[in-house]
Amino acid sequence: MPHPTPGLVGPFAWTTEAAARRAEAGLTRALRPRPAAWGTLDLAGNDYLGLARHPEVTGAAAEAAGRWGAGATGSRLVSGSTALHAELERELADFCGAEAALVLSSGYAANLAAVTALAPAGTLLVSDTSNHASLIDGCRLARGTTEVVAHADPDAVRKALAAHRGPALGVFDAVFSVDGDAAPLPALAAACREHGAGILVDDAHGLGVLGEGGRGSAHAAELAGAPDTVVTVTLSKSLGSQGGAVLGPAAVIDHLVNTARTLIFDTGLAPAAAGAALAALRLLRAEPDRAARVRRTARALYEGIAGAGLQAARPDAAVVSVRAPSAQEAADWAARCREQGVAVGCFRPPSVPDGISRLRLTARADLTSADLDRALTVLTRTAPPSARRAGGGGAAGAPGVRPSVQGPGR
Amino acid sequence: MPHPTPGLVGPFAWTTEAAARRAEAGLTRALRPRPAAWGTLDLAGNDYLGLARHPEVTGAAAEAAGRWGAGATGSRLVSGSTALHAELERELADFCGAEAALVLSSGYAANLAAVTALAPAGTLLVSDTSNHASLIDGCRLARGTTEVVAHADPDAVRKALAAHRGPALGVFDAVFSVDGDAAPLPALAAACREHGAGILVDDAHGLGVLGEGGRGSAHAAELAGAPDTVVTVTLSKSLGSQGGAVLGPAAVIDHLVNTARTLIFDTGLAPAAAGAALAALRLLRAEPDRAARVRRTARALYEGIAGAGLQAARPDAAVVSVRAPSAQEAADWAARCREQGVAVGCFRPPSVPDGISRLRLTARADLTSADLDRALTVLTRTAPPSARRAGGGGAAGAPGVRPSVQGPGR
Ligand SMILES: Cc1ncc(COP(=O)(O)O)c(C=O)c1O
Ligand SMILES: Cc1ncc(COP(=O)(O)O)c(C=O)c1O
Repeated sequence: MPHPTPGLVGPFAWTTEAAARRAEAGLTRALRPRPAAWGTLDLAGNDYLGLARHPEVTGAAAEAAGRWGAGATGSRLVSGSTALHAELERELADFCGAEAALVLSSGYAANLAAVTALAPAGTLLVSDTSNHASLIDGCRLARGTTEVVAHADPDAVRKALAAHRGPALGVFDAVFSVDGDAAPLPALAAACREHGAGILVDDAHGLGVLGEGGRGSAHAAELAGAPDTVVTVTLSKSLGSQGGAVLGPAAVIDHLVNTARTLIFDTGLAPAAAGAALAALRLLRAEPDRAARVRRTARALYEGIAGAGLQAARPDAAVVSVRAPSAQEAADWAARCREQGVAVGCFRPPSVPDGISRLRLTARADLTSADLDRALTVLTRTAPPSARRAGGGGAAGAPGVRPSVQGPGR
Repeated sequence: MPHPTPGLVGPFAWTTEAAARRAEAGLTRALRPRPAAWGTLDLAGNDYLGLARHPEVTGAAAEAAGRWGAGATGSRLVSGSTALHAELERELADFCGAEAALVLSSGYAANLAAVTALAPAGTLLVSDTSNHASLIDGCRLARGTTEVVAHADPDAVRKALAAHRGPALGVFDAVFSVDGDAAPLPALAAACREHGAGILVDDAHGLGVLGEGGRGSAHAAELAGAPDTVVTVTLSKSLGSQGGAVLGPAAVIDHLVNTARTLIFDTGLAPAAAGAALAALRLLRAEPDRAARVRRTARALYEGIAGAGLQAARPDAAVVSVRAPSAQEAADWAARCREQGVAVGCFRPPSVPDGISRLRLTARADLTSADLDRALTVLTRTAPPSARRAGGGGAAGAPGVRPSVQGPGR
């Protein structure tokens, strides 16, 4: 990791001053590359199904690189589409119940593509305040105008739509990335439909975890395949790879092929990543219990944490969020966990604009109960005293445990 | 490839009407997945050094997937940084002469990261009108304000900067992706420096092609390592893989780690892509003649094309642009080339807002003279009669051959 150049002069000197301010506020972020032999229990990553290191998945990556080359060599529209990309698109669409799919180089790029291509000038974008950064950036790049509405609030969506004449699109994370709570998709979709608005669902954290056999949140909400619904997913979480996809009516996918800048002006996804995602998808199909397993594991993790008197949010998917007393204490707590062999995520401002820092733990389908015990022991042993709820212990599932989070990802 | 859903109803029905308008204008784009056994001579991709299928590169991709997993599993700041990413960053920085480097999931993401992180509110972005879509989107996402200036025009940069008080950043493609012309970097940098503005150079098409041993445009212009210069590169063209990187002073890189949304909120680059790019970089280092070879090949290609009386732009790097009479004729010409076994790029509006459609041919270091002959034969045999310059034949390098291009990538 590079360290700030002492005394950088010239037009970028202000970056060293910004670094000093961050250090003072205890908000410095640094890359910590992990070694190949990482003797750490990973509760930080998003490899929910434990497929990133599955030999069939890594084998498929290797095979695809050998067969198709290490890179796609160009835009999907020029030289960067292979039969492998097309196969992945067909199987993804089929699995999720959509008419068609389009694979992009990341979930971030997929969200930028979907939001910008579906919100031309005159469109009202109604966007949940807790939406992911990539949806927010998509709204900012789109030619339409955006109204940010309260978190998971169908009435707020209804109100925003009622005040607008013309085309509109509701934009929602299905599972929010920091706290792991699920959006009330059926009610949000109903609000959109009352006003004839399109529905865009980012299911980055739902694919592989929620819905029948991991078919995702939109499938569970009976929105998959609907002519008014577009779903984005990432290949980088449950599918253990890299990349993203947009799923929806074939006409919408065709429109993206023709207009989405992050599709047209970006090199296609590397064949190795496409091959790995396809292998992971086939594993999920063959072993549908993986999705149920990760949900059970998340619930067990939550119950242990809440039972130890820590303030956790009841998980709707694979993410368990634990409240920390301050940004500095969150960072110190996460560092102590890491020192004791358990990696956890640490979210501090500006990633959590409500100012509440938290640890973010992720369940994996392949965690054993010994892993869970170890994680719980380390997490509770290293917790700062003020992280415990007044009254301590017990109240797993007590009401009000979820901090009311607004706007992660800004 | 999905075809527009006939009779799509609901909020996205307008996409079918847009498709009809595109079809009428002859501007329909479609994905054409290539088969694994592609008996086609590829002059469409950006694999300039012919490394995407090099066994050391694909082997490194396979090895990295096996060793590190198919995906990075999380953001670079959480679980997604491996020792392999760090190694790639060190070697990239070292090769290009920068103090530090930061690898992102695509060149697109690298540009979004660099532009937005370095142009906070109050900053003036001075952006060449022909800049790539990702730089333009970066300008639109940045909190600073943007002034678009004439193509490759240091005086226009000077004028924009003179009218502004406060921090400023000049943003330039080093090699423009459609016409392959190089920006006058030393003069552009001088204009920025007169006004104390920072310099951001996108060297997507210069790395591996220009500069000593392929060290890129900024290195050739003696800007590499300068405290006022930041360079972005992609790993998806000369390095035959996927991904992007930002190179610059360590304090700037540290600032990106702390603030760039496409770094913080995006899954890290897949290990296979990082491993492949690193292997390609090492090959380029070991065989520096590859860079000179691709330039020679591009010049030979251009001379053949111009000699046949077609309107080509003299290449500054690996890209040779050939003017077509119309969008429809460009598409038909490219289709005839493809039918006869030669793949070429075809750029039509809106990718070329000057309205001039062109074929885009790319040279590769591994093209043989037989390949070149075949490409030239097919290209000239399939050319529409009106593609030939009045007067025909001969005038390789005649003045005025380059169409004056404004604004590709919008
Ligand atoms: C909700 C959400 N959407 C989109 C993304 C972007 O996906 P990717 O990392 O594959 O670019 C992420 C995470 O990174 C996410 O959490
Ligand atoms: C000039 C330029 N910059 C940036 C990019 C984006 O790089 P990538 O395709 O790796 O995302 C490209 C091409 O795709 C390009 O031509």
